[in-house]
Amino acid sequence: MHEFEIIKKYFSKLSINNRSSLNLNDDVFFDKLKNLVISVDTYIEGTHFIDFKKPDLVVKKILRSSISDLICKGVNPKYYFISGSGNERSLTKKNLKKISQSLKEEQKKYSIYLSGGDTVNSKKLSFTITTIGFSNKIIFRNKAKINDDIYVTGNLGDSFIGLKILKKKINLNKELNDYFKKKYFLPDLKFNLTNKLFSFANTSIDISDGLIADLNKLINKQNLSYKLYLNDIPVSKNLRKLINMNIVKKKSCVSKGDDYQILFTSSKSKSRIINKLSKSLGIKISKIGKICNHKAKSQIYDEKNRKISLKNDGYYHNF
Amino acid sequence: MHEFEIIKKYFSKLSINNRSSLNLNDDVFFDKLKNLVISVDTYIEGTHFIDFKKPDLVVKKILRSSISDLICKGVNPKYYFISGSGNERSLTKKNLKKISQSLKEEQKKYSIYLSGGDTVNSKKLSFTITTIGFSNKIIFRNKAKINDDIYVTGNLGDSFIGLKILKKKINLNKELNDYFKKKYFLPDLKFNLTNKLFSFANTSIDISDGLIADLNKLINKQNLSYKLYLNDIPVSKNLRKLINMNIVKKKSCVSKGDDYQILFTSSKSKSRIINKLSKSLGIKISKIGKICNHKAKSQIYDEKNRKISLKNDGYYHNF
Repeated sequence: MHEFEIIKKYFSKLSINNRSSLNLNDDVFFDKLKNLVISVDTYIEGTHFIDFKKPDLVVKKILRSSISDLICKGVNPKYYFISGSGNERSLTKKNLKKISQSLKEEQKKYSIYLSGGDTVNSKKLSFTITTIGFSNKIIFRNKAKINDDIYVTGNLGDSFIGLKILKKKINLNKELNDYFKKKYFLPDLKFNLTNKLFSFANTSIDISDGLIADLNKLINKQNLSYKLYLNDIPVSKNLRKLINMNIVKKKSCVSKGDDYQILFTSSKSKSRIINKLSKSLGIKISKIGKICNHKAKSQIYDEKNRKISLKNDGYYHNF
Repeated sequence: MHEFEIIKKYFSKLSINNRSSLNLNDDVFFDKLKNLVISVDTYIEGTHFIDFKKPDLVVKKILRSSISDLICKGVNPKYYFISGSGNERSLTKKNLKKISQSLKEEQKKYSIYLSGGDTVNSKKLSFTITTIGFSNKIIFRNKAKINDDIYVTGNLGDSFIGLKILKKKINLNKELNDYFKKKYFLPDLKFNLTNKLFSFANTSIDISDGLIADLNKLINKQNLSYKLYLNDIPVSKNLRKLINMNIVKKKSCVSKGDDYQILFTSSKSKSRIINKLSKSLGIKISKIGKICNHKAKSQIYDEKNRKISLKNDGYYHNF
């Protein structure tokens, strides 16, 4: 069974008297009265990260993917809890030292503090990260308006190429291999944009499962559709090289997920503010499509205005 | 390596600028300014619960053991997040239905609300539970005073006998088997005592690892010792029967953990309040020893005033 079905069928009703849970249909929990925003995520070896050969990078990646949930909602993360299950093979002294050093660096970079957690013995390596922020407002899902522009920060697809390199499915030259692997392990969170989001975004989500999957999630309770333009989906210079050399197709790699960029919609009147902010903060923000009414069918168009579908609608857990 | 060593060596320093983490040396995180109290615990099949043959009971047990962390600190839990890793064998539709029903019953019993979480696919079954409460004060560890009396709520040892029955190491008659198994799965949390604790307890902890292990943790940063009297350690009528019939020894089963009773210390002047409350709430509260200065050695005395040691100092995770 699909993980969303599980939540809908067995767990949503348990949160019915708890408005802060947002019907378990958002990335975060938000208690407005207490100004409290919380996100909980579990990461498992073999599913969310390939292996633990680079503990320092794996830990940075999962911590960033965890705080990304708050950042995309306009909330600065403050505290995090990490609960690690592993054994003497995965949590060796050497690895623990690396994990500790990684956490220290991330704490400095994002002004967050380790606040607790748990270490338990298990053959299978996994981590659950709880992230806490404080805010009297968040940007919700399902608040897109008809005719909103759809925007995305940064570039998409680099992380997916990095994963393919790590899985030895592509091999490029050392420089490119290193570039894409770094993009996979160290998502470039748009931390400086966090608090600014309120000034223009109607609704937002971070891209973890894939552009299309997350766009669908962003408006899943709304009677809306969208148009996306492949040409406008931002990619890095390095990914552009691979596309130009026909090593990969753009449409096969921009909706694969793990990008941790912010996907949001804004009314047209905000485009000047967005462009201005993009320049002043030095953050790439690209308009990639628009929100339409429910009568239209959601469509993606290629460079020649042909309707296409983006390969891979995203990653889901099936049971 | 011992889990406490891991925390001390690799993680304590990461929380150094974060007073709310209580140096990672308490059961909870407490942000006084935000009135926020948080506990995070991970439970793994084969370690924290034997198997998943009784999903309804396992889920109740781990949820209670999680909220017990807040209750013993004088804080009412309000929200919980549950992150489950499992697969199509452990998280079947039938099991999910049972889990959902169990959570519903526990929510009603303890006035708590499911607020989020995560479901991920994994061969190994595990759960991480995050519990949140709101309070401007908590009862800390390491605040015992010399000459304090040591108290414990409820009875100790029943859960351990239940575990032995489940592991088929003891077999009693059906009625007793059922009684002890129930005590193992459904710890009798002293929920009604939660807010009252502030009126008499100097320091407190819940007994999860075992009476002695948790008493040592309770005062681990203090230069103190204790005297305990085996005779005064409370056991149920049913456990008394087994002891009288020489099926088990009292000293071998009252410090095994999984009791989820509250262990606290109070000044002698509070004994009247405690007895009065115990009667009015119908909650058994037993004085089992006293706190002494560091010059004395911690001792446990049996019925004949002989010094003894309680078998099993508690459960720790070693890596």
